[in-house]
Amino acid sequence: MASTTTDTAPNAFVIPKTCKAGIVVNEGPDFSVEVRMVPVPEPAPDEVLIKLNCTGVCGSDIHYMTGDLGRPPMSHFGVKSAGHEGAGVVVKLGANVKNWKVGDRAGIKPVWITCQNCEQCWTGREQHCSKVLMAGSKVTGSFQQYVTSPASYTQAIPDGVDDYTAGPIMCSASTMYRSLVESGLKAGEFAVFPGGGGGVGIQGVQLATAMGIRAIVVDSGTEKKELCLKGGGESFIDFRDVKDTAAEVIRLCDGIGAHGVFVTAPAAYPTAIAYVGSRVGSSVMCVGIPSAGTMTLGAEPEKFVIQNMGIKGTLVASRADIARTLDFAKRGVLKPIHSVVYPIDRLPEAVEKIRKGETVGRSIVDFNL
Amino acid sequence: MASTTTDTAPNAFVIPKTCKAGIVVNEGPDFSVEVRMVPVPEPAPDEVLIKLNCTGVCGSDIHYMTGDLGRPPMSHFGVKSAGHEGAGVVVKLGANVKNWKVGDRAGIKPVWITCQNCEQCWTGREQHCSKVLMAGSKVTGSFQQYVTSPASYTQAIPDGVDDYTAGPIMCSASTMYRSLVESGLKAGEFAVFPGGGGGVGIQGVQLATAMGIRAIVVDSGTEKKELCLKGGGESFIDFRDVKDTAAEVIRLCDGIGAHGVFVTAPAAYPTAIAYVGSRVGSSVMCVGIPSAGTMTLGAEPEKFVIQNMGIKGTLVASRADIARTLDFAKRGVLKPIHSVVYPIDRLPEAVEKIRKGETVGRSIVDFNL
Amino acid sequence: MASTTTDTAPNAFVIPKTCKAGIVVNEGPDFSVEVRMVPVPEPAPDEVLIKLNCTGVCGSDIHYMTGDLGRPPMSHFGVKSAGHEGAGVVVKLGANVKNWKVGDRAGIKPVWITCQNCEQCWTGREQHCSKVLMAGSKVTGSFQQYVTSPASYTQAIPDGVDDYTAGPIMCSASTMYRSLVESGLKAGEFAVFPGGGGGVGIQGVQLATAMGIRAIVVDSGTEKKELCLKGGGESFIDFRDVKDTAAEVIRLCDGIGAHGVFVTAPAAYPTAIAYVGSRVGSSVMCVGIPSAGTMTLGAEPEKFVIQNMGIKGTLVASRADIARTLDFAKRGVLKPIHSVVYPIDRLPEAVEKIRKGETVGRSIVDFNL
Amino acid sequence: MASTTTDTAPNAFVIPKTCKAGIVVNEGPDFSVEVRMVPVPEPAPDEVLIKLNCTGVCGSDIHYMTGDLGRPPMSHFGVKSAGHEGAGVVVKLGANVKNWKVGDRAGIKPVWITCQNCEQCWTGREQHCSKVLMAGSKVTGSFQQYVTSPASYTQAIPDGVDDYTAGPIMCSASTMYRSLVESGLKAGEFAVFPGGGGGVGIQGVQLATAMGIRAIVVDSGTEKKELCLKGGGESFIDFRDVKDTAAEVIRLCDGIGAHGVFVTAPAAYPTAIAYVGSRVGSSVMCVGIPSAGTMTLGAEPEKFVIQNMGIKGTLVASRADIARTLDFAKRGVLKPIHSVVYPIDRLPEAVEKIRKGETVGRSIVDFNL
Repeated sequence: MASTTTDTAPNAFVIPKTCKAGIVVNEGPDFSVEVRMVPVPEPAPDEVLIKLNCTGVCGSDIHYMTGDLGRPPMSHFGVKSAGHEGAGVVVKLGANVKNWKVGDRAGIKPVWITCQNCEQCWTGREQHCSKVLMAGSKVTGSFQQYVTSPASYTQAIPDGVDDYTAGPIMCSASTMYRSLVESGLKAGEFAVFPGGGGGVGIQGVQLATAMGIRAIVVDSGTEKKELCLKGGGESFIDFRDVKDTAAEVIRLCDGIGAHGVFVTAPAAYPTAIAYVGSRVGSSVMCVGIPSAGTMTLGAEPEKFVIQNMGIKGTLVASRADIARTLDFAKRGVLKPIHSVVYPIDRLPEAVEKIRKGETVGRSIVDFNL
Repeated sequence: MASTTTDTAPNAFVIPKTCKAGIVVNEGPDFSVEVRMVPVPEPAPDEVLIKLNCTGVCGSDIHYMTGDLGRPPMSHFGVKSAGHEGAGVVVKLGANVKNWKVGDRAGIKPVWITCQNCEQCWTGREQHCSKVLMAGSKVTGSFQQYVTSPASYTQAIPDGVDDYTAGPIMCSASTMYRSLVESGLKAGEFAVFPGGGGGVGIQGVQLATAMGIRAIVVDSGTEKKELCLKGGGESFIDFRDVKDTAAEVIRLCDGIGAHGVFVTAPAAYPTAIAYVGSRVGSSVMCVGIPSAGTMTLGAEPEKFVIQNMGIKGTLVASRADIARTLDFAKRGVLKPIHSVVYPIDRLPEAVEKIRKGETVGRSIVDFNL
Repeated sequence: MASTTTDTAPNAFVIPKTCKAGIVVNEGPDFSVEVRMVPVPEPAPDEVLIKLNCTGVCGSDIHYMTGDLGRPPMSHFGVKSAGHEGAGVVVKLGANVKNWKVGDRAGIKPVWITCQNCEQCWTGREQHCSKVLMAGSKVTGSFQQYVTSPASYTQAIPDGVDDYTAGPIMCSASTMYRSLVESGLKAGEFAVFPGGGGGVGIQGVQLATAMGIRAIVVDSGTEKKELCLKGGGESFIDFRDVKDTAAEVIRLCDGIGAHGVFVTAPAAYPTAIAYVGSRVGSSVMCVGIPSAGTMTLGAEPEKFVIQNMGIKGTLVASRADIARTLDFAKRGVLKPIHSVVYPIDRLPEAVEKIRKGETVGRSIVDFNL
Repeated sequence: MASTTTDTAPNAFVIPKTCKAGIVVNEGPDFSVEVRMVPVPEPAPDEVLIKLNCTGVCGSDIHYMTGDLGRPPMSHFGVKSAGHEGAGVVVKLGANVKNWKVGDRAGIKPVWITCQNCEQCWTGREQHCSKVLMAGSKVTGSFQQYVTSPASYTQAIPDGVDDYTAGPIMCSASTMYRSLVESGLKAGEFAVFPGGGGGVGIQGVQLATAMGIRAIVVDSGTEKKELCLKGGGESFIDFRDVKDTAAEVIRLCDGIGAHGVFVTAPAAYPTAIAYVGSRVGSSVMCVGIPSAGTMTLGAEPEKFVIQNMGIKGTLVASRADIARTLDFAKRGVLKPIHSVVYPIDRLPEAVEKIRKGETVGRSIVDFNL
């Protein structure tokens, strides 16, 4: 069970000298993860120190440790721990920190800090700041129990949202919130989620439903089907059961096609455009990032023109997006998704399962187990 | 010179039995056009009869007569005349017509009529109606001097806009207006027009300028350069003069890249995405339609995601768009573009030049010359 | 029970010479309504003849018959029957009608016809056309069993929505849909409905809920409370039970205030602005129309400036809005509201109750009872 | 002349111990301003020290020193100098500052700092942060030559914009930019500026023109007329020369009325709504703040409903808005407005003239004269 530490007296925190961390070994295609003891860091004057209760494990972590996104390796920045979905509690304040107090619940999200001085930072698109530091990639991530975080970029976790739920909201759920908002879909319209039974897609299904958008999932297996329908999905198409998935999607979308297609699983890019059918004004929203150079998303220009159609990408979420997504969870509209919980010592196994695509739902690693 | 007939007494119109028309012969890849006499049609009860003073000749007319868009041929609908940029005067009213009077100036635009009973028709996106009839493709077009037009879909031409200007506004200028509006570009942002010296692009350059958007043109030749700079373009890049066109575009766009790229010439699709550089939130707007199956517009999904980037298509214009574009012309903000004027008997030559890509600016055929 | 006539053979319709209608007598402050036999009208070439199964009775009908909106009286246009929420079936087609067939289900809505040739008509805001003819005010309304309607302005009723539900969607529900959409409120935000237990407000409560918007109702009585909570309302504030209604609204809206306030009952205008509390970017949406000259909605300019606040009005709905609202009903998201059903001969009594403000929920008059 | 100090060697700055400041004396309705020597402040670790070359004088400064906005007096916060339109150069960096270097040009704007941790701060509406500190009201303002400013909230001034132009952009011009953007007005639509010849309104006239919006000014006097027409205004109505100002506005706006009315001078609030005429979808934008309790902006709810009309307020500008407005100036689109320049010792006179409403254009106080 996720512990919510809000009722703990602030002075109860005894901070150890060392803590457990999931260290990447042999970074690259053949990386592995080992749990080792590392020094507990000291917060800088504008930072807080967070004791994490849990962290989610995300497909991006595999990308970062494999190094297949065409970016500098973690080691280039001296980073040894991936992870960007942490939930815990503030246990120590840097000298200048005024907006946090010890005992406050707090999360680690993909965006660790940005420049604060560019157009993106000024307009609520800070995740697109060209100087962004991503947690678990350019700075130490949430695969370490005690981590520091900038006071003005740490995400508050409200009461009523437990840590197991809050962790994945930092990344997967708020990413879907952002994509749904940017898609401009209105209540009553159709959203298709290829791979919607996965850890990211299922959050989209829940959030779409909470916005009055009709969610159609394309995925396979009865377990995922149950998960999606329970999450509010209107229909579930098992692609192993139908001859022509796109035709079935279109049939369910009033015979016309989807208003929006949300591609969380890169494997779905080549077929995603088919789901919009002949819907005027429809959009394909890009969420998942494939390995560098492995895939191109394309369409005939004529299709865009004739159907007033578009493609658009969004990248994780802003602080405002995450706060709103946490509010959905607080109201019970965004429910904890089916999670597989691992104690911290089994983090390597959790990572391995994600790498092999064997995980159903979301993986949570509990630092207290 | 274009004649504006508003000062002609309504009862002055003597309607002949026959009139000249540019008839397609041997429709298909080897089509030609011949000017022949055809019967003047009678307006149906909800139609008006328009005597055209001139018509523009557009690249789409070549597509329609060649039949390379993968659609049924003109002959399938019994249509013999292309053309969808006509300007003239109403000379006869159908029995039920109340919103026009004889002597009113009126235009023929790409959308001849739509169903009026679908979501697209109801929401100002009538050009995307699935039952749309396009002039010059499914109904007789403006390559014929006397044509009928539905009373509720005929475009009024305001005083102060001469016929030579009004004709191309029906298609090329209003198409660019629509695309600029849908792009969401704001005043002060950068719009790149590859092929912006062409008949469609130059209208985009003028309209962007009139909206406070900074127009950068990529094209070649001093004639086009002069045209574009006179039309308000901020810069003109002659692609024959620079090694790396995209790098030059990016340099001019504050070193970051364009906010929007407007692709009017299909040949520009493969390179268009490069012009956005690293601009967050940028868009590639699809306007030109290539021959069926000849081209795919593509990009790495990662680029869309990281840059919050999009692609979107728009198709010609709605009646409201055309009315607003005519208003720009009325105010003198949208100036008559450089035109080559042909008397009606030389229509075949005008068509031939467009087919061969030898036209600079816009071609106008004058029925009164 | 509402009958849905879709399974009736088209040729089963025997059209009588006369039919019942609720005729206004002594139009003005002391008007009354009498049910009389009137001739069944003949559809013009572009019209259909509809046999109504039922009609709603709306507060606007009282305004029209009283003549207190500062507009010309019904008699000025030769209109004797109010009503603009009818549901029935097409029984005869005018000579030119192609988009309807006998037996199709169809409704009468506030907007009977518009000019089709102005910017409002072109852009989906046809209810704001300056030449609009409103049913029951400038043309014969739905208080008459057989009525004509323009083929391109008649609203189709989809299967799955019964007549008792469809009638009030033509006006009250779709009006609220329009206002909610124009308010720009997003899922998760707070909408306050003063008088939300009334016939219009309750539709807003249901639709807001269907859009993921959190509905707070201010009204009184246990009957209305039950109705609102059943319709999805998050909270119901009985203004008789609290000292400071605005303070209570603000408390429920995260201690800040509402994002939007939807004023359906004119009596709520003077207090509506208080409900936004200190919410930045909030809106007061004007829906209800008071008698001419009886009320002014005001606020300190400073409040608008400091809070980036706004006031906006919307007027009934477009055809697209109604179609979407009907779709909500078809999916069961918008449920039939509590209705009091009157046989046609008791129409005068239904009108009288609305006039006196004694109606709970919506009043339906059934022509078949 | 405004000096631009960018070519000064950074180490050339010798910082004195004291500097001149315009100190408020007898704060309240009978305040006066005296120029006195005050200690040059020391920047905190996250602040920069700016040597101002000039400051604008704004009507809000009068409000702050008079204390008529219903807020705590300046003395409550220990503030002695008003002013919020300063332009100068960074001369010293706090210990933690990395995004500035000595010699950079920088400005003081109304928003001195905000909390950085609320929804407003996260979404580009930081001026609406409930914890905002306004310069010249809650912290020392730009009526003092050497002032400190938070490193992340100080506005960079680009080359190509001189100090006399940059100062007023910090407040009046960027305030108008924000209001124009939030109004949603499109190129080709009509904006009316009552009092548009004043220091704030004239910036709106210039910016509207730069956005392709047609500016109509209502004011009086040939000096203001020349200023407005030179700034791009399409028409100038001298309210002393016409019987019915609103009728004249409506006539100029295609006989319908304005799309937007921008109220910078509070005296215009009571009449502003008349300028929209019968324009559907029009807006009155509130910019000017009247003395507390002196004025209410009102309208019949019916007018809002029938015309789909709105009222909305905006408050100064965000950092992004100011950066964009500076970019307009850099391109020469926003020109330096007619200014009256006072040496620093005559600041009291400049203030006095604003208080009496005797200033034409903008007042600039130069610290180097």
